[in-house]
Amino acid sequence: MPEPGWIDEIFDGVRYGLEGTVVAEEQSAFQRVSIIESKRYGKGLLLDGCWMTAEGQERHYHESLVHPALCGAEAIDRVLVIGGGDGGTARECLRHGSVQELHMVEIDGLVVDWSKQHLPSLGGGCWTDPRFQLSVGDGIAWAAAAADASYNVVIVDGSDPAGPAEGLFNRAFFENCRRILKPGGVFATQSESPEAFRQVHIDTVKLLREVFGYADPMYGWVPMYPSGWWSWTFAATDGARYRQVQADRAAAIAAGCEIWSPRWQRGAFDAIPAFMERALNQ
Amino acid sequence: MPEPGWIDEIFDGVRYGLEGTVVAEEQSAFQRVSIIESKRYGKGLLLDGCWMTAEGQERHYHESLVHPALCGAEAIDRVLVIGGGDGGTARECLRHGSVQELHMVEIDGLVVDWSKQHLPSLGGGCWTDPRFQLSVGDGIAWAAAAADASYNVVIVDGSDPAGPAEGLFNRAFFENCRRILKPGGVFATQSESPEAFRQVHIDTVKLLREVFGYADPMYGWVPMYPSGWWSWTFAATDGARYRQVQADRAAAIAAGCEIWSPRWQRGAFDAIPAFMERALNQ
Repeated sequence: MPEPGWIDEIFDGVRYGLEGTVVAEEQSAFQRVSIIESKRYGKGLLLDGCWMTAEGQERHYHESLVHPALCGAEAIDRVLVIGGGDGGTARECLRHGSVQELHMVEIDGLVVDWSKQHLPSLGGGCWTDPRFQLSVGDGIAWAAAAADASYNVVIVDGSDPAGPAEGLFNRAFFENCRRILKPGGVFATQSESPEAFRQVHIDTVKLLREVFGYADPMYGWVPMYPSGWWSWTFAATDGARYRQVQADRAAAIAAGCEIWSPRWQRGAFDAIPAFMERALNQ
Repeated sequence: MPEPGWIDEIFDGVRYGLEGTVVAEEQSAFQRVSIIESKRYGKGLLLDGCWMTAEGQERHYHESLVHPALCGAEAIDRVLVIGGGDGGTARECLRHGSVQELHMVEIDGLVVDWSKQHLPSLGGGCWTDPRFQLSVGDGIAWAAAAADASYNVVIVDGSDPAGPAEGLFNRAFFENCRRILKPGGVFATQSESPEAFRQVHIDTVKLLREVFGYADPMYGWVPMYPSGWWSWTFAATDGARYRQVQADRAAAIAAGCEIWSPRWQRGAFDAIPAFMERALNQ
């Protein structure tokens, strides 16, 4: 057992560290997977040395990624999640009773296995929910192979655009996501930090606007990601429907949310910094 | 000259560090004052080992603290800033042409001297602006001694409620701030992190509501502060006037803002996390 110490992610002259111990670490076929036990936020997951999630502060990320999409799409019968191997995104989706089928395509089986074993609160009941179907494989290929208009919601819960997640930020992938969306559907992706990854963020939002017609970033907070200031971007073909919250769906989930509420969502879309509004309108 | 390395603030099992060098460090009568040169954000200031500000990322903090107050008060002829020794708050206030007189009361003359010397971009032209009057002294005593209804806006730009800033978070101080505000005035203070200092934040907002009648937190981002998720709270006696932006004042400053805009401000007030809305309504 290693001694307790600091587990840091270093990015561009800044480091964010949690005090704790590495409890499991292995090189999978895709990346180095680490599980840590931290003093402040409980157990956590790193991929290639980058913080992904932790038990004690995962709600902001997962509620932000899921509920604007699931409360805005016309119907939510069929949902596709690409990535999301820790289970947190699937858990939040399945809180919506109208979801009939949830397909999750995660490339790295070790992330799923270790999340079930070490981070059971992340997935909660998702792993045994009869609506949930896991495929361990390539989400980009899945999106390319899926039938036209086969999902109401497509959610991309991937890591930074390097390594296995690189193909989750390009036009060909986004065009397939658009193609497989049903009319009235919503697409959602994490879209990096407006500060630490400013250009990737701007390029992603602009490309989604080109491909879907409508796309808007929403801003929030993930302290363990570079700069702590994070974004999620939502897209649709028939208007900014991800900004309109269906009241019955909101009412059914609100009491179980720590961060998300219709008011919080409205604020998080409006809280676009002035420099970013200028950059996106150029 | 010390070797370059990491300069960290550690809080409750979490650390945030910038790669850089300590260029000046001294114990003043009140605290340990450190100036660092960082790779990522340029020169920065720490007090008692806690990050205060840095050249490359000070705009979010200062624009957030100042403009909701200065765009919401009925008049803005006379402004009082308590703390704020780095000059960033005074600089943003003085961008408003209607400000006739700005009194700044900073307890630690060394912070002022070193900010002028090492962080000249923070204060900008404030130090020589004829409207600006600096007093090195106790801001709590200043508020207690000031005449009734003598300021249009009172801004508290202090550090965490420990050491010299402890008295900036209690009822007696807030009551004096209310007393010295003119009718139609606005009070503003940094109000800690809703995550790392949750109880202090909640207690501060509730106390301000009791003392002033109206008070609301606004949420944003300061990566070098514990958790990165930060808040500022605004208060007034005649309604939530800090949420209403006077269009002419906004138009005069908008082009020079990196973060603040009327839309961003509306969002930052609305982006209150669900758990906090519940806690404040209890």
